[in-house]
Amino acid sequence: METTLELRLTYWVYLNGIRFFGPGRAELLAHIQETGSISGAAKAMEMSYKKAWRMVEEMNLEGKSPYVVAKKGGKEGGGTALTERGKAVVAAYNRLDHKLQALLKEEQELLDLI
Amino acid sequence: METTLELRLTYWVYLNGIRFFGPGRAELLAHIQETGSISGAAKAMEMSYKKAWRMVEEMNLEGKSPYVVAKKGGKEGGGTALTERGKAVVAAYNRLDHKLQALLKEEQELLDLI
Repeated sequence: METTLELRLTYWVYLNGIRFFGPGRAELLAHIQETGSISGAAKAMEMSYKKAWRMVEEMNLEGKSPYVVAKKGGKEGGGTALTERGKAVVAAYNRLDHKLQALLKEEQELLDLI
Repeated sequence: METTLELRLTYWVYLNGIRFFGPGRAELLAHIQETGSISGAAKAMEMSYKKAWRMVEEMNLEGKSPYVVAKKGGKEGGGTALTERGKAVVAAYNRLDHKLQALLKEEQELLDLI
């Protein structure tokens, strides 16, 4: 069997020394955007609705302004969407992620030594 | 209370899709270098000797060559030391860490949005 070696990283924003936003929440927001509901996002991530809802609530309360909002009825009958801030946070997270992954791709020294 | 926001990351070398080397093992090796023993390193990290010993054994078996070696008796009565490869792996890990931390320091966009 061929041996494969690769570098992977994860990062988080810490708020007052505590993990506030990282890969899990970025993924949750992306799924909310995609499915239009917290329950759909929770299902996609094999997470309980309760846990997903709590994560959303914490982001909404502790972020500079809410990331997720309930949509009013209308034609599509309500649901959940990201606010402009929520979308911007996900986009900034993904941009930084691509930048870090690009840096890692050029790193061979550690892999050669391992 | 002042709100503090900061970015922190961790990264690992994956071997055949499984985490092989990251912050925990880098720290363990550094402590072995410092204390001259696996038990001293385990104590410094509040980890059981058994766990530390297993981590060392896995690195020694799966790395390109051993990272840790038992020193023969002599004046200082034995103990444990890093091999040249062990030292080189720790140094490369720390160099990459500094590089990634430096990149993160310049990243304000995500923190401003959060």
